[in-house]
Amino acid sequence: MLEELKVKVYEANMELQRKGLVIYTWGNVSEIDRETGLVIIKPSGVDYDTMKAEDMVVVDLDGNVVEGRYKPSTDTPTHLVMYNRYPNIGGVVHTHSEWATTFAQAGMDIPAFGTTHADYFYGDIPCTRDLTDDEISGEYEKETGNVIVETIGDKNPLEVPAIVVKNHGPFAWGQDADSAVYNAVVLDKVAEMAYKTMTLNPEVMRVKQHLLDKHYLRKHGANAYYGQKL
Amino acid sequence: MLEELKVKVYEANMELQRKGLVIYTWGNVSEIDRETGLVIIKPSGVDYDTMKAEDMVVVDLDGNVVEGRYKPSTDTPTHLVMYNRYPNIGGVVHTHSEWATTFAQAGMDIPAFGTTHADYFYGDIPCTRDLTDDEISGEYEKETGNVIVETIGDKNPLEVPAIVVKNHGPFAWGQDADSAVYNAVVLDKVAEMAYKTMTLNPEVMRVKQHLLDKHYLRKHGANAYYGQKL
Amino acid sequence: MLEELKVKVYEANMELQRKGLVIYTWGNVSEIDRETGLVIIKPSGVDYDTMKAEDMVVVDLDGNVVEGRYKPSTDTPTHLVMYNRYPNIGGVVHTHSEWATTFAQAGMDIPAFGTTHADYFYGDIPCTRDLTDDEISGEYEKETGNVIVETIGDKNPLEVPAIVVKNHGPFAWGQDADSAVYNAVVLDKVAEMAYKTMTLNPEVMRVKQHLLDKHYLRKHGANAYYGQKL
Amino acid sequence: MLEELKVKVYEANMELQRKGLVIYTWGNVSEIDRETGLVIIKPSGVDYDTMKAEDMVVVDLDGNVVEGRYKPSTDTPTHLVMYNRYPNIGGVVHTHSEWATTFAQAGMDIPAFGTTHADYFYGDIPCTRDLTDDEISGEYEKETGNVIVETIGDKNPLEVPAIVVKNHGPFAWGQDADSAVYNAVVLDKVAEMAYKTMTLNPEVMRVKQHLLDKHYLRKHGANAYYGQKL
Repeated sequence: MLEELKVKVYEANMELQRKGLVIYTWGNVSEIDRETGLVIIKPSGVDYDTMKAEDMVVVDLDGNVVEGRYKPSTDTPTHLVMYNRYPNIGGVVHTHSEWATTFAQAGMDIPAFGTTHADYFYGDIPCTRDLTDDEISGEYEKETGNVIVETIGDKNPLEVPAIVVKNHGPFAWGQDADSAVYNAVVLDKVAEMAYKTMTLNPEVMRVKQHLLDKHYLRKHGANAYYGQKL
Repeated sequence: MLEELKVKVYEANMELQRKGLVIYTWGNVSEIDRETGLVIIKPSGVDYDTMKAEDMVVVDLDGNVVEGRYKPSTDTPTHLVMYNRYPNIGGVVHTHSEWATTFAQAGMDIPAFGTTHADYFYGDIPCTRDLTDDEISGEYEKETGNVIVETIGDKNPLEVPAIVVKNHGPFAWGQDADSAVYNAVVLDKVAEMAYKTMTLNPEVMRVKQHLLDKHYLRKHGANAYYGQKL
Repeated sequence: MLEELKVKVYEANMELQRKGLVIYTWGNVSEIDRETGLVIIKPSGVDYDTMKAEDMVVVDLDGNVVEGRYKPSTDTPTHLVMYNRYPNIGGVVHTHSEWATTFAQAGMDIPAFGTTHADYFYGDIPCTRDLTDDEISGEYEKETGNVIVETIGDKNPLEVPAIVVKNHGPFAWGQDADSAVYNAVVLDKVAEMAYKTMTLNPEVMRVKQHLLDKHYLRKHGANAYYGQKL
Repeated sequence: MLEELKVKVYEANMELQRKGLVIYTWGNVSEIDRETGLVIIKPSGVDYDTMKAEDMVVVDLDGNVVEGRYKPSTDTPTHLVMYNRYPNIGGVVHTHSEWATTFAQAGMDIPAFGTTHADYFYGDIPCTRDLTDDEISGEYEKETGNVIVETIGDKNPLEVPAIVVKNHGPFAWGQDADSAVYNAVVLDKVAEMAYKTMTLNPEVMRVKQHLLDKHYLRKHGANAYYGQKL
């Protein structure tokens, strides 16, 4: 079932490790097949070194396991909230990558300080509010998705395709699993440079709106002219 | 004698180097065979590049060398204090890994700032008090173990399976040598993110107790649901 | 056309990746053939992993594509402003390397703190002013070149062969593509040590002019005595 | 002439690169053959990638080239001042390694904060005074050696086998080229942890003298008991 997509999701998970975003089992990637409404996701707590494409788990949008000998990632309900709420999202990633997690732990948005940020994120990357004790005691992983959705609201989630969950870590997404991983890599690099900028110059100001517009739109706008395919 | 365990302890020592926790001879791992009460430990000051499994030293719980052509690690008495005091510890690691050592040198506990920490450590990772001049002049390595035990007290040592010794460096432990090394790796990563969190936001608050409970217990509690084996 | 130079420019682009200055497509290198006035430059948004020497694009000094099946880098107009204004520049590099970009985002010059800096840069490495909204809305990449030229003025650009563009990132240059890449690598290392110096000792003073003279001139002056070829 | 020693000095130079202490040609190692009074040193400005053992240069203690087709390192006079002044030094290293250079640029001693430091350096690692303008204009590299000697004075240079030269970078030494390189590696690691300690806790205190004594002397004292050979 969806064997090609399993290989793609498996490779996207392995890419997290190759890019240095995860150690051990500290991350997970999924992609949805919008035609069937089925989601392929990494199994829970399986070692990257022994994991195979066939170990990927297939779940439906209600969280029922449709195929797979392993339990899906514990973070599956968070992914599903995202897919259910935003039909233009095709892939979701969760990591504990160190620079983005630093902002999550500090409880701070990642400010847009330059064009590296603006090339991919059209504004600050937000940090969610704290989950309430009830949310934590209840369906915790689902509530994590809910607080992400609450923060994004009705905005197009692809304009700022990442978030940091307070005291937890980053989630990133994209049109498919590969672009979600790409955005997770960029997120951590952008967070790293924001940290260094803020510790070097505590008085630093955000990038001008005009420059933010320019860089984001030359790549992603209607008249984009970056790259070969646009 | 205990040849399989020697291979395991040797491999655990080599893993320290592969994970970037040690340079040169700056670390040691041991594991105890609870049936015989014998401890396998790395020899003192032997280069990782030439070390072999057969070079591991066998000592008893009083520190007598039972087998081995090398002297055991100078830190052996510290390991033995831990094994003698806490019967549920099976492996012990000592390193000078850079981020944990930073907290040891700064004389500060590593605060629990997020779920990465909470997944493995059920509360702050403590820093010991200074050793007295008498303790340093006396049986120094044994007194290092004593001050660790004094800090942990009657708590279950597996709930916070690491410590930093003031002006010295980290010790970590676990059910066996492999889990001790795993905890030493996580310790350094957690210390790194704590450092970055504190320098980014000096006013930062610890993670809520409720979230600490949730993450620790979903992995380690009676109703744990993370991973495949629980 | 200029096949040898294409190979050289291709290799210089790949060197950016090997030295860790770029991830994905975040950089570009060009070299000019002064005899013909033609510039070889990396294509826009092509992946380093699949890029070949024959994919390099040939443009003239007015920006017309003379040969190549790809569009040239979007930053081409910036490179051309440099080549048109300074006849002694033979190669230009743009990256988002993390330490230099940190200074660009902080809006700060990179101060000359030591001999590592002085060996290659004869004084502080400047940060440009902000581009105006009109400059951003207009011929943005060309205006980026103009603000670089405005900052350098009539000085010899090879004496401080790099700059950071405010809220954007670094450009470096040299006598050819290889030396431009070399200077981009040194720039990031020098920026890294400046950041660490300033965060360690906020009261730190610049290196003495006399020491700056000594180190720069023993490598680059009329009586240079460093290396084998001088 | 001294072919075995050339291989050893060549290998020690290559080790600088393998350990990440140098990029390009930013370092040099020498060793003295005390019997003949001849010093083997790296040639000036030769690329590590193409350098061979036979390229090492032989100089006498007055700086005359005795053998070699290349010019010796420009820093040769600094090395020679050390060998002439301290008969128990057998190898000298100079690098621009980033953490030690940070302290050189900040004009600060590297304080002894823990046992990692104390295992190799018996006290703070000093930063020299500024060179005067006359010293810089005169025999600069020799005066660099003189200011190092002025800082060490009549102390045994092997007790603190490294120094940082103000606004310049580190020198380290040892009984031979290998131990000098080893000390240069430890120096940079110790400087890194000192930087992180000081930025984490600006109020941090040095390690107690008693603990400094204990760790240094258990490795290097008359009754040393660390390692296998003592």
